[in-house]
Parts: sequence; structure tokens; C-alpha cells
Amino acid sequence: MNRRSYRLEEIAHLVKGEYFGEKDFQIFNLASLEKAHNHHICFVNGEKYLAQAEVSQAGVYIVTESLKQLLGSKKNFIVVNNPYLAFATLTHIFDKKISQRGIESTAKIHPSAIIADDAYIGHHVVIGENCVVGNNTIIQANVFLDDNVEVGKDGFIDANVSITGEAKLKDRVRIHTNTSIGSEGFGFAPYQGKWHRIAQLGSVLIGNDVRIGSNCCIDRGALDDTILEDGVIIDNLVQIAHNVQIGQNTAIAANCAIAGSVRIGKNCIIGGGSAVAGHLNIADNVTLTGMSMVTKNISEAGTYSSGIGLFENSHWKRTVVRLRQLADVPLTQLTKRLDHMQAQLESLESTLKLRK
Amino acid sequence: MNRRSYRLEEIAHLVKGEYFGEKDFQIFNLASLEKAHNHHICFVNGEKYLAQAEVSQAGVYIVTESLKQLLGSKKNFIVVNNPYLAFATLTHIFDKKISQRGIESTAKIHPSAIIADDAYIGHHVVIGENCVVGNNTIIQANVFLDDNVEVGKDGFIDANVSITGEAKLKDRVRIHTNTSIGSEGFGFAPYQGKWHRIAQLGSVLIGNDVRIGSNCCIDRGALDDTILEDGVIIDNLVQIAHNVQIGQNTAIAANCAIAGSVRIGKNCIIGGGSAVAGHLNIADNVTLTGMSMVTKNISEAGTYSSGIGLFENSHWKRTVVRLRQLADVPLTQLTKRLDHMQAQLESLESTLKLRK
Amino acid sequence: MNRRSYRLEEIAHLVKGEYFGEKDFQIFNLASLEKAHNHHICFVNGEKYLAQAEVSQAGVYIVTESLKQLLGSKKNFIVVNNPYLAFATLTHIFDKKISQRGIESTAKIHPSAIIADDAYIGHHVVIGENCVVGNNTIIQANVFLDDNVEVGKDGFIDANVSITGEAKLKDRVRIHTNTSIGSEGFGFAPYQGKWHRIAQLGSVLIGNDVRIGSNCCIDRGALDDTILEDGVIIDNLVQIAHNVQIGQNTAIAANCAIAGSVRIGKNCIIGGGSAVAGHLNIADNVTLTGMSMVTKNISEAGTYSSGIGLFENSHWKRTVVRLRQLADVPLTQLTKRLDHMQAQLESLESTLKLRK
Repeated sequence: MNRRSYRLEEIAHLVKGEYFGEKDFQIFNLASLEKAHNHHICFVNGEKYLAQAEVSQAGVYIVTESLKQLLGSKKNFIVVNNPYLAFATLTHIFDKKISQRGIESTAKIHPSAIIADDAYIGHHVVIGENCVVGNNTIIQANVFLDDNVEVGKDGFIDANVSITGEAKLKDRVRIHTNTSIGSEGFGFAPYQGKWHRIAQLGSVLIGNDVRIGSNCCIDRGALDDTILEDGVIIDNLVQIAHNVQIGQNTAIAANCAIAGSVRIGKNCIIGGGSAVAGHLNIADNVTLTGMSMVTKNISEAGTYSSGIGLFENSHWKRTVVRLRQLADVPLTQLTKRLDHMQAQLESLESTLKLRK
Repeated sequence: MNRRSYRLEEIAHLVKGEYFGEKDFQIFNLASLEKAHNHHICFVNGEKYLAQAEVSQAGVYIVTESLKQLLGSKKNFIVVNNPYLAFATLTHIFDKKISQRGIESTAKIHPSAIIADDAYIGHHVVIGENCVVGNNTIIQANVFLDDNVEVGKDGFIDANVSITGEAKLKDRVRIHTNTSIGSEGFGFAPYQGKWHRIAQLGSVLIGNDVRIGSNCCIDRGALDDTILEDGVIIDNLVQIAHNVQIGQNTAIAANCAIAGSVRIGKNCIIGGGSAVAGHLNIADNVTLTGMSMVTKNISEAGTYSSGIGLFENSHWKRTVVRLRQLADVPLTQLTKRLDHMQAQLESLESTLKLRK
Repeated sequence: MNRRSYRLEEIAHLVKGEYFGEKDFQIFNLASLEKAHNHHICFVNGEKYLAQAEVSQAGVYIVTESLKQLLGSKKNFIVVNNPYLAFATLTHIFDKKISQRGIESTAKIHPSAIIADDAYIGHHVVIGENCVVGNNTIIQANVFLDDNVEVGKDGFIDANVSITGEAKLKDRVRIHTNTSIGSEGFGFAPYQGKWHRIAQLGSVLIGNDVRIGSNCCIDRGALDDTILEDGVIIDNLVQIAHNVQIGQNTAIAANCAIAGSVRIGKNCIIGGGSAVAGHLNIADNVTLTGMSMVTKNISEAGTYSSGIGLFENSHWKRTVVRLRQLADVPLTQLTKRLDHMQAQLESLESTLKLRK
């Protein structure tokens, strides 16, 4: 936590909002509505949080104009069009920044590597031949950059990350702890009952503003490169196999697996726990809900789903029994047969009536 | 492996059981029924293991009173109420303990950090500003504790673990290799087609006796903290997103993903490969079977399931065809229509009979 | 990348193929059909790549005899029976090899450990008591080998890997970055509402030519060992629980979870994102398609599947409604009832005709 405090007027200026109330009110921190104290600032992200806001102890509320009208009991406000965005901006004000610069004495850096003067290289970092680390980039403890890896400026590589495969990262890239970038793709030629390893000669290209979580794997390509375009954001424990290409600003939630040579378009949202089979194409602006299983190309924007949600266990067991029978039930014919028999019945009935 | 041996009488005492047979019989190790040699001790966990016990070469058997009656051919026993619990206890007797204490010369520890005298800090460990490491805690090689991280007493942090986000761990916490605690949660505000990163200001609170496996991710909270209560146990490759709260003694098996702000109650068991969507509540004493997908709150204790088990591939393909038709089949009406037509038929039949 | 170039004749000799065209044609690198330049060599893996080959700029094509006939516009070829295998072979020619040998000054190696003279031990590696590292094995930066771990010859252990639990690795084993081998299995005895930890006394045995990807977990056994037989290949983010046994040459794709005590046979292929419940047996030569969920033994070779592929979201929602009704629909009786009623109808019809 940043220890300095801010006045209401200052914060309003930082988020380009208008303040109402005591302009010199001291704000020590951002907080949730539930946990806020008097000198904390909160945001109200829509009417569904009004009840929580009413009982909150916070001193200041970031709201829209219309939400302000509904919070008559409160005194200090900052009015903006998008409170969530203002909150996102403020988190950076109150975030503790890493101020260290220079190279720790225990880091081992190959003489051919080029490290910007204002970068920080933490303890026990190992940096190989011909590596480049750009201005203002932070590399935390125990990171390994293998030969020919390049990291651009304003980057953040957290502890115990391994970057190999001659990966090239552009600017403002963030990689969290224990992630593996550039490992060998899973490529084997089966021959005479054995797997013959295919050495992977491609690399990994990571665009500007890409964010990769902890314990992820982004493999290097077999011949061409694995590519994450600008603005891609990836949660934890995600697998990106060799030769995958992911378009700008696509977001991938935790525990997804994207198999080899998949191409995902721009602005997609891939729900957590989803898997995409190899060599498929997914169009721009596709949303997959959680635990989706993609086995065919998706050529149109839209929302797609798979998987069955939760059942009470005994209901589930009976459902599974029925599912196993389903293959042999001619579903589409059932209704047709019923309609046909209904017609026969009615014809019989009218025949009988005629003969009365 | 601990190299000393124990006498039958000693072991019986350690597990609070009664011994039968040769009280000075030497026991060198615990073993499975299948692999045991003469001076090994085994446990018999119910009648279904009797056949295996009969042919086992083990010298001593941990059994219940009734199991003992069924193993007439054996000589040495320890009788207890709960053989599995006795076995759990004995594993600690035969486990090799880490006896090292003190700080290795290559560890880099900030002068403001407080390290207990009888802790062990392995090679190349990096410990930041204001960190605390409690009595008798073992920190293995290449671990990174970022500024303000605290680890209680009797803890075990295995190699290459990264703990950031000012996480606070209580006593007897065990974290296995390559796990990430306190990484930044996956929080972004979408605005004008881009993702605006929300710096995460919350932390991670980990209770007493919590166990976290290898290559897991426990993210720090956005504003409030991510909380694992006392006695929570977590297997490998598990994702716990920001602001999740997990109640006492809940167990989570491998490869699960718990999305942001989920609250899971006490004494739950979450089967492997399950995923829980964001902002949901799960009651106490809920069991989810493997690969469950939770998309709604669970307000009652019980066992829940989802996912379909395995089909032979061609059966599965035909089933999937039917499933895709299912949305347009009015299942609940089918039976009603059949019943209705049956009634019509019977009415026609009786009409015909009357007119004979 | 290896910087030297090869002549067409040389390459043909290396892959045991026959060359056609200019025998001294210089080849600088392997490439994909799409990205190849004039002095690159490509492979054509079947007729479906002919159109791409036609427009490729590559100087040389590895093809079968019949594919060569179909590429009349090209000049230089290498003809082999299996172009994919020839490609696999060539990747090793163009791969950059690690040439370093010896022990870096910052590595910390217990005096009782035995390290082969021509092994390479990278910076900040920590190697415990009684460890063994065989001839020509490469251990990259920041790796931790706990006491009694053994690695055979010609191995490759990439950065930030942790090997504990007295694991024994045979020859030519490759382990990629941030993987955990030998961590404690997830074993707890429940008693009086708490989980009592079972210290894990077994180990991990890894056969010759095994390949394990990045951020995987292979836990040590409880009493007996976890065993990966010769030639097993494993992708990234895979969980192998305690006491699992995996037969020769079985391949496991990314994000799979194999629960405790499972036995998988030889030559199996486990699709990505699959999970196998504990204590099950899977026969030899079983293929599971992606995201399979195995809850019963598989005793016969074959291909098995589970999970439902993707639906457009509104179609999916309607399908899920039907699925929840399915348990109460007597599917197998529906057709029988329809047949029965059809017979009744026809009987009525003929009765009516007779009475005309």
C-alpha cells in the first residue's frame, strides 16, 4: 500500500470526475463497500450495490449522476460516467510500486546481454546470451531468461518465471510467478510404436500490453511462431500450445487449454476451464462460457456453450442412464409418429360417427 | 526414509493400539500389502483387502478386532479402531524429517525481515522487506517471499514457491513446489475495446494447518482479501481466484478452478477437475463429484454432479446427434400425448364392442 | 538456430531419402510451407497440403514418391516413405544445442552428490545429499534436486524444475520448466472432522526416454512408487497423482488429471483436459478424445469419448432444460408404446373394414 493520502478534490481530478462535498476530505485508501472505514473511498457499480452502499462506512463514493440521487444520506461523492473505470484508475494510485533499479549482485548476466540502466534485475536472476531487457522493466528474483530472449520496456516479470525458446516480448508485458514461456511444444512423430521427438524451432512472439497469469505455459512454435497479439490477457494455469495465434484484446480465463495451431480472433472471451482442439479457427468477437469444449471451427461471432451444469447426484445418475439410451431413440420421428397416429385415430373416430 | 527400527510394542504404543504376537518383533518400515517384506508393517483397510493381506509377506498387520479374527494365518497384529488413521500416524514416524536449521549463505534476506532462529532458509531463497518467518519453519531452495509476506511457525514452503501480494500464512501451513501465492488477481475494466488493468490491493490470508499442493495459484484479492480458513487442503494445479473464501476443512482435488469472489463453506469436498463460476455461494458440507461445473448457488448440503462419463466413441457420436435434437423435442408432452391417445383408442375399442 | 547450411545431397543422406534436383543446393533452415524462403526446406504431409506447397517459396520439398508426381512445378525434392518422420529427424539437425559443460560457480551441490564430468549444472541450481547426475545431462538454472534424487544420462532438466521425493529418473529424460516431480501426494485420513496428513513415503520412478512438459505435477507414492514407464510423453499442466502407473509409450495431452492409484496401459493416448478418477484401470491401446471423464475401468482397447461439444448459447440453454427433464422420460418405453398403439390402431381399422 502506498502510504500517502489524497484530498477529495485531487482524486476527482485524477479520475476526471466532479466532486461533491468536502473538497479537502482526506482519503487514505480504496476499499470495498463492506470493509471501508471513514477515510476510504469506494465505488458503486450499479443500482444492485445501493443497499450495500447505504450501510457502508466509507467517506467517499464514486458514482454516476443517477446513483448519486439515490444515495441522499451520503455526503462526499465523485461523479463520473463509468465508476468501474474510475476505480480501475485509482487502484494504480494506491498500488505499491516497485522502486528498485539496477542489477542485484547475485544476478548472473551473460556479458553479451543488454540490460537498460533503469531496469531492475532481482536476486539470482539468470540471463543468457544476447538477451535484451528494456527500460524500466522489473525482473523479480529467480527468473531465468534463456539465450536470445528479449523483453521490451515497462515490463514486469515476476519471480520464478522461465522464458526460453528465444521468445520476444514487446512493451508493458506482465508475466506472473512460475509461468513458463517458450518451452518446447508437444510435437512427436509416431513411428514403429515409439514417439520421435520433433525439436521445436519456432519461437514465441508476445505483443504490447499482454498480461499472462501465474503457472501458465506458452509453448514455442514447431517451425513458425506462437503469437499473442497486443492486449491479450490470460489468467492463471492456462496452456497455449505451439503455433497458436491469439488476436488482439482476447481474454482467456483460468485453466483453459488451447491446443496446437489454433487461431483465435480478436476481442474473444474464453471462459474458464474451456478447451479448444487442435488446428481450429475461432472468429473475432466469440464468447465461450465456462468449461466449453470446442471441436469445430467457429466462423461467426456470438456466444457459445457446452457442458451440463450441476445436478443433485441421484437426479444426475438417472439422467446419465437416459443419456446412454438416447442414441437408440429416434427423437425427431417420435413427434412425427405421434402426429400420424393422431390423424389415424381421428379418421377412425369420424368413420365411426358416420356409421352411427 | 528414517533408518531406525521400532519394536512391535513401541509401534502399538505410538498408535494407541493393542499388540498381539512377538512384542520385540523388529519393524523397519511401513509398506503396502503387495510390496511388504518380513520386517514391514501394513494396514488392512477393510474386508476387501483381506485376500491381499492373506498373501502378503508383511510381518505385522494393523487391523480392527474383527479383521484380526479373519486373518488366522498371521502372527503379529496391532489392533485399533481405525487402521487408516493409525497408518496416517505411522507415516510420520517413518518419514524423513528435514533437520537443517539456520540460513544458508546464499539466501538473500532483507535486513528488516524477522527470521526465527530455528527456522531453515535454503539456498538462493530471497526474502523481502518486513517479512516474518516463524519458529521451526522450513523454506526450501529458490523460494521467493516478496515484501511484507509472513509465514507462521512449523510451516513448510517447498522449492521454487513464490509468495507475493503481502500474503499472511498462519501456523503449520504446507505449500508444495512451484506454487504461486498472492499473485495479482485477473481484474480488468473493459473500456473502448481495451482491457484496463485493475491493480490488486487485497492480500491472501491462509489459516492454520492449510495444505496447498504443487503448481497451484492463490491470487490476492482486489480490495478485500482472498481467504483460506483453517484446515483447508488443496491438491495440485488448483486455481483460487481473487476474493475467494474457503471454509474450514474443505478439501479441493487437483485441477479445479474456483473463479473470483466465490464463497465455499466448511467441510466441502470438491472433486478433481471441477470449476465454479464467479460470485457463487456453496453451502457447508457440499460434495461435488469430479469434473463438476457449478453455475448456480448451492444452498443445501448434499452431493452434486455434472458431466457425462465415458462412451465408446461411435455410441458417443450418435448420442451427441440426439442431444443436438433434444431442444426441439417436447419431452414432457410426449408421455402425456401417448396417454391421451391411449385413452382415445380404448374409447374407440369399447364403442366398437358395444356395436357388435 | 544452428547457423551452418547443408547441401541437398547431405540432407537426403541424413533422412535416408533420395534427392531430385540440384545436389549442391544450399539449405539454411527448415520452415513451414507458408513462411519458407528460397533456401529453406519444407515437408509435405499428404495431399491436403498440395495447394499450399504449390504456392510455397521453399527451395526443397520432402515428399513421398506419389506427392512428387503432383508437384510438377517444383525442382528440388527429397523423396522418403514418411515425410513427417524425415521432418522430425531434420529438426534435430537445425536445433541449437546446449554446448555448456561443467558446474556453474553459483550452483550449490552437496559434497556427497555425484555429478558426471560432462554434465552441465546451471547457475543457482541446488543439489542435495546423495544425488546423482549422469553423463551429458543438462540441468538449467534454478533447478532444485532434493536429497537422494537421481537423474540418468543424456537428460535435460529445464529451469525452475523441482525434483523431490527421492525420485529416480533414467536416461534421456526431458523435464520442462517449472515442473514439480516427487511432491507429496494428496493423502489425508479424515477423523473427527479434520484431515490428518499422511506423510508420503513412496517415490517416483521415471523410465528411459520419458518427456514431461512444463508446470506438470508428478507426485510421489504413499507407500509404493508412482511409475512412468519408458517412452511415456506428457504435455504441459498435467497432474499425475500418487501411485499412478503409466505404461510404455502412452501419451498424455495438456491439462489432464490422473487421480491416485490409476493404472494406464501401454500405447494409450489421453486427449487434453481429460480426467481419470482414482483407482481405475485403463487397458493398453486406449484412446480418449479431449475432455473425457473416466469413472469406470476400461478393459478393452478402443476409442472412448465424453463431454458434449459446443452449442450456440440459446440452443444450449434449451437443451439443458430438456436434459433436466430426461430422467423422468421413459425413453426406451416410448417406442414400445408407440409400436403397441400402432398395432391397436391397425387392428381397429381392419375390424371396421370387415364390418363395412
